[in-house]
Amino acid sequence: MTRRIDLNSDLGESFGPWSMGDDATMLSIVSSANIACGGHASDPETMFKTLQLAHENGVTIGAHPGYNDREGFGRRVIPMPTQDVGRMVAAQIGALQALSKMAGTQVSYVKPHGALANLASVDRDVADAIISAVATVDPALKVLAISGMQLEQSARDAGLPVFSEIFADRGYLSSGQLVPRGQDGAMIHDPDEASDRLLKFLETGLMPVIDGDPIPLDAHSICVHGDSDGAVAMARMIHQKLSAAGVSITGFCDP
Amino acid sequence: MTRRIDLNSDLGESFGPWSMGDDATMLSIVSSANIACGGHASDPETMFKTLQLAHENGVTIGAHPGYNDREGFGRRVIPMPTQDVGRMVAAQIGALQALSKMAGTQVSYVKPHGALANLASVDRDVADAIISAVATVDPALKVLAISGMQLEQSARDAGLPVFSEIFADRGYLSSGQLVPRGQDGAMIHDPDEASDRLLKFLETGLMPVIDGDPIPLDAHSICVHGDSDGAVAMARMIHQKLSAAGVSITGFCDP
Amino acid sequence: MTRRIDLNSDLGESFGPWSMGDDATMLSIVSSANIACGGHASDPETMFKTLQLAHENGVTIGAHPGYNDREGFGRRVIPMPTQDVGRMVAAQIGALQALSKMAGTQVSYVKPHGALANLASVDRDVADAIISAVATVDPALKVLAISGMQLEQSARDAGLPVFSEIFADRGYLSSGQLVPRGQDGAMIHDPDEASDRLLKFLETGLMPVIDGDPIPLDAHSICVHGDSDGAVAMARMIHQKLSAAGVSITGFCDP
Amino acid sequence: MTRRIDLNSDLGESFGPWSMGDDATMLSIVSSANIACGGHASDPETMFKTLQLAHENGVTIGAHPGYNDREGFGRRVIPMPTQDVGRMVAAQIGALQALSKMAGTQVSYVKPHGALANLASVDRDVADAIISAVATVDPALKVLAISGMQLEQSARDAGLPVFSEIFADRGYLSSGQLVPRGQDGAMIHDPDEASDRLLKFLETGLMPVIDGDPIPLDAHSICVHGDSDGAVAMARMIHQKLSAAGVSITGFCDP
Repeated sequence: MTRRIDLNSDLGESFGPWSMGDDATMLSIVSSANIACGGHASDPETMFKTLQLAHENGVTIGAHPGYNDREGFGRRVIPMPTQDVGRMVAAQIGALQALSKMAGTQVSYVKPHGALANLASVDRDVADAIISAVATVDPALKVLAISGMQLEQSARDAGLPVFSEIFADRGYLSSGQLVPRGQDGAMIHDPDEASDRLLKFLETGLMPVIDGDPIPLDAHSICVHGDSDGAVAMARMIHQKLSAAGVSITGFCDP
Repeated sequence: MTRRIDLNSDLGESFGPWSMGDDATMLSIVSSANIACGGHASDPETMFKTLQLAHENGVTIGAHPGYNDREGFGRRVIPMPTQDVGRMVAAQIGALQALSKMAGTQVSYVKPHGALANLASVDRDVADAIISAVATVDPALKVLAISGMQLEQSARDAGLPVFSEIFADRGYLSSGQLVPRGQDGAMIHDPDEASDRLLKFLETGLMPVIDGDPIPLDAHSICVHGDSDGAVAMARMIHQKLSAAGVSITGFCDP
Repeated sequence: MTRRIDLNSDLGESFGPWSMGDDATMLSIVSSANIACGGHASDPETMFKTLQLAHENGVTIGAHPGYNDREGFGRRVIPMPTQDVGRMVAAQIGALQALSKMAGTQVSYVKPHGALANLASVDRDVADAIISAVATVDPALKVLAISGMQLEQSARDAGLPVFSEIFADRGYLSSGQLVPRGQDGAMIHDPDEASDRLLKFLETGLMPVIDGDPIPLDAHSICVHGDSDGAVAMARMIHQKLSAAGVSITGFCDP
Repeated sequence: MTRRIDLNSDLGESFGPWSMGDDATMLSIVSSANIACGGHASDPETMFKTLQLAHENGVTIGAHPGYNDREGFGRRVIPMPTQDVGRMVAAQIGALQALSKMAGTQVSYVKPHGALANLASVDRDVADAIISAVATVDPALKVLAISGMQLEQSARDAGLPVFSEIFADRGYLSSGQLVPRGQDGAMIHDPDEASDRLLKFLETGLMPVIDGDPIPLDAHSICVHGDSDGAVAMARMIHQKLSAAGVSITGFCDP
């Protein structure tokens, strides 16, 4: 059985007067925080406070760059030349890095957000633009990606350390892809079911799928959400059940 | 006679479809470029291209952070807690630093913009917030400030290398302060007059003032503008007359 | 005893992915909704949905213009020429008016928000700029203002119908002004206390103050908040206690 | 020969400190001004001043709504539900209408901008969302559209008065569509050529095409540009040559 796993979550997604998610609680649960960088969400003050709180909780810090589109929360593809994507990502990582120094900590990895992440999963040019930006800004940065997708391959080809994540609340197909939202089996809402499924996966290395036999999946990290009471409850239960089973919740970047 | 002086100018202040100033020409004239960081102006693409062009022209690069207020171009004081100023400045410097790596170059100094610079001249707490951000983000960064103002003193007290600038197109008072805009003698519009005045200053170390005898002023750099045809013409003439007089136009950061 | 009173609240202050307050509940409690216009908060979609919901609940609609400053939520004075204030306000009212037609309803009054409202209370020029904008955009619009302040006087002088509000959760001074935040007695946190105080005021026309005998106050509307669970509970109790005492909760604009 | 024609141009596209185009000159040339509404460009102050200047020049005023995307200048399709398009357009028209009252004038028509206009040309649902917004906000508004496209058809079906435009500087195909940018014959750069071609079209009603015999085209207005010295020169020559030939340059909305 896998004796350690990372829990990661998207955090620091408040903006000005608007709060999103229960970051304080989530930072007591997860081992890695994907922190918004002022593109799809956040502002310098929110970034700083989230970095500080992550640092206090011993949580590993990742940059979570997204499209510069707060109104759409980075969930819309904003058309732009591919090379501009790299510059957008670089600027966001740089802003978070500078603020991480203000907070006495550091950025260890990058995980793209929303529509940018989706596009980077399937579009190798966009993936390369992101990975090239990451490698240029700081070659010590690691990449957190979905197993089997273009971003992972691009990072691997560029020689960046790349780690893969699975989703606590999403169903899988035998192809290794997620069941598309809206289809039966796409979402797992029950914290018990989600936790038990993850435990079994960690024991066997096989993930149940809705259209065949369980499949082997690569996973250094489990993505959990914190944007609703239900999501926080699920994250907490996953942490508890995995810990109780002897799995150490440890940042994937940790040695 | 002073055998070298720096010429600095605010550049990279375009935004999206909107162009400001003739950066290409100015980068063939100045030795230091204060590049906007996405706060009062610019965007990742503009920042990248300005950095690239500055690098190609061998121009030293400075970060030019300002209030996050494009509509007001950073010329309005946006009220905020003093500590937030430091975080705002840090995020902007970090963004420019990351993009400077993309452009194969680096940020050497920081010069605040507009209303932020004015406030940092007279408000020691704001000056300290900025200087603390600079020192924390990168202690190798230098500071370009107005001689005798709070920002210079704060940088000095923090042990940061600080350099001082004078203005090519502004009149001075015997107190060392600028003649306030709107008063007689505040602006120097004639390129010849501006150039000759600077030449004499470099020869004697004394700056003419409108209310008494010339005064000694500290100056490692001359600030010139590039936002109008007249401004570019003045910058060009200053460069020509100073060069012709044997003064080397050299970045103040250069050894 | 006053047999009717209006309850007003600031609503429609969400933005993109970020939600603020419990608008659905508040719209079942209040009789007038001050709806954000895309300046300090909101976006076209949020404006439309809030207008629609207000209309469905039979709630009178007011425009709630504020500084174009989402990050600061309109709580910071953004320095600008006074005449620009009028144009900013006009643009926001116009946007809400157009969307009110889309929602099959209409804007009946204007109440400025946050720092703009505070400034308009004490600065007659700013008050005049706002009132002139209101009168020019639609002379049928009413104004909701704090009794005794510059905005009320400006509206009166311009011949606009003006109504005055008191605050459910704020203490008063014998001068008629609010006890400044931070001072003892500034805030009333207990829903029972707030409700009973308002009831007594409606019976007697006299408002208790912290520094003397109760004073007469002009009030067509009571401002309640909806941005926290406690605020919603207070608004609900005020509605219940006033209704139980035979006070009709009716829009101040209603005949 | 057609004895009158309208010249229209996109104006009021400055933003904050950034200026675009020579609006003052263009407003002495054109008879209709498509004024940006704060979406892809402009701000309340720019809108007001452009309205005022158009009014002083006796130029008919149109709203020129576009995607809320200043960085992309409304030239990128921002993905959003179709119904949201209508609300975005309504808010922008409303803002311009309110400011037109401040400037003592009024909005007479609507012409969508950039990527929104392109999409509305080919996507009937988007066209309907825009037209429905226009008709709901003010049924007296006219529509300026490209002949033969979805927006024109939608306006016609909704009973809105719709007028069609041709482009001074673009080549046509025998299908009536524009030669795609980048292809030979797409752009007409020479002011003489553009003017003579338009004159011949006004005489014959037939437009030359690059792939066959001249075709009949419907045209109430000619779109000219003002964003470069060359564009202004072309607009000026077209105005001169048409006027000299006895064609009256008159707003298409005029009786």
